[in-house]
Amino acid sequence: MRVKHADASTLAGLLPAADVLLVWDFASHAVREAWPGEGPRPRWVHTASAGVDHLLCPELVDSDTVVTNARGIFDRPVAEYVAALVLALAKDLPRTLALQRERTWRHRESRKVAGTRAVVVGSGPIGRAVSGTLTALGVGTALVGRTGRAGVHGPDDLDRLLARADWVIAAAPLTSTTRGMFDARRFGVMQPSAHFVNVGRGQLVVEDALAEALRRRWITGAALDVFETEPLTPDSPLWDLPGLIVSPHMSGDTAGWRDELGEQFVQLYELWAAGRPLPNVVDKQLGYVPGH
Amino acid sequence: MRVKHADASTLAGLLPAADVLLVWDFASHAVREAWPGEGPRPRWVHTASAGVDHLLCPELVDSDTVVTNARGIFDRPVAEYVAALVLALAKDLPRTLALQRERTWRHRESRKVAGTRAVVVGSGPIGRAVSGTLTALGVGTALVGRTGRAGVHGPDDLDRLLARADWVIAAAPLTSTTRGMFDARRFGVMQPSAHFVNVGRGQLVVEDALAEALRRRWITGAALDVFETEPLTPDSPLWDLPGLIVSPHMSGDTAGWRDELGEQFVQLYELWAAGRPLPNVVDKQLGYVPGH
Repeated sequence: MRVKHADASTLAGLLPAADVLLVWDFASHAVREAWPGEGPRPRWVHTASAGVDHLLCPELVDSDTVVTNARGIFDRPVAEYVAALVLALAKDLPRTLALQRERTWRHRESRKVAGTRAVVVGSGPIGRAVSGTLTALGVGTALVGRTGRAGVHGPDDLDRLLARADWVIAAAPLTSTTRGMFDARRFGVMQPSAHFVNVGRGQLVVEDALAEALRRRWITGAALDVFETEPLTPDSPLWDLPGLIVSPHMSGDTAGWRDELGEQFVQLYELWAAGRPLPNVVDKQLGYVPGH
Repeated sequence: MRVKHADASTLAGLLPAADVLLVWDFASHAVREAWPGEGPRPRWVHTASAGVDHLLCPELVDSDTVVTNARGIFDRPVAEYVAALVLALAKDLPRTLALQRERTWRHRESRKVAGTRAVVVGSGPIGRAVSGTLTALGVGTALVGRTGRAGVHGPDDLDRLLARADWVIAAAPLTSTTRGMFDARRFGVMQPSAHFVNVGRGQLVVEDALAEALRRRWITGAALDVFETEPLTPDSPLWDLPGLIVSPHMSGDTAGWRDELGEQFVQLYELWAAGRPLPNVVDKQLGYVPGH
């Protein structure tokens, strides 16, 4: 096996001769730009990420190249991160830390999360892990997926669920269906006491609409770990929106994550080299790994 | 039934004629100071708090007056608050909020809490609720109580458990045994990667020793919701210790808590008026409600 490292400038030259492509940098769009179309190309592309939106171009979708992802690695970390945000918002932790900086002792009441209601949009392994963790905290949780099935609501139920949710968690893949789904109308449907959390992809959210919803108090608060443009630029109005927690796309990245991603690729490579079927195969039309 | 409201200045004059005393302000030491000793006195004292350290004076301990507490009201809120702090520390949330203020995008790795280890000191209902919530998050949790029994470690196990804990949670009542138990030696036993959380009483901790432990990096971080002196004065060095979250004794106080405390007292009062036995009776020698 010969291994070649590529960056955005050398990828196009290397792809035609490659059998396998490992995409390590999920923030790069280099694959989409360098993909050789109908010419010689890798038979297998693995991305060390849960989302595949950064690499799917029409030529790759239409080809017989197999695409796999890092399904499983991020489930638990992202679920914990969502729990951290939900609890921090319920317990008013950002305000506590702000008062601490001012050396001000100000007792406040906070919210109990047990008995509250969450809607988790995205019924893949990450969404299910988020749902499981919130359920363990006593939060009544509804999962919403692309199609309704046992334990999962279909899109038709979404607005009704949003209207009574205390917590709305976006954990869906970015597809043509989910792009911009959290828009002004959907923030308007939510309760004034609701909080919105996005750990999926920035483009699920119309950021201007969220900003408006927070400024006008259509909802109480939000936390974004992903953004339309990453890194968020210093002049973005999102940094100091009232009630918004901004974090730098880190929800899934717990100590050791790179090792786990590397080991997962090696395991898949061994299957591939032995001519055996690969797990985690992305449905390129849907834009994610379909599951139960 | 006649109800009289008392404050610190009028309590001593009213106590001899009272049958029942409801202590609503847990931060006040007025009962200790006004208790009539051997003279006429209330037959029953209820405190709208979990801890009873603020009212037990030798004369009350030695009397036949029954003392009850608000056992049960704070369990779940405090457990959620501890989970919020543990997750915030694991996910580096204070630093994320500080970077947000500076409009700085800086990706970091955080810690997974699943698979880490916690020691919860205090095996009453609050300690057990904390343990249950951490266990639900995948944290391996050991409970330490005054005496070892099924599911609870005795004090002899404490140092050994501290030496391998990622999270040390103080949720014990303040008694002559627990006062100052978290001292320089105990912080020295903990791992450099450990975090310490106190939601019990401030006097469980030798605050200077904790400050030293944080400054010298004997432990990585801490969160205090309770303090030797409350409110914490603006000139306290605790406000800006490295790695320390300061909150104003609010862990149990979720919306509706005062109503719940009031309803609980009414329920106990009805039992008392009917001459029936009261629940939540404090063992005044031990300083808490003994349980299983």
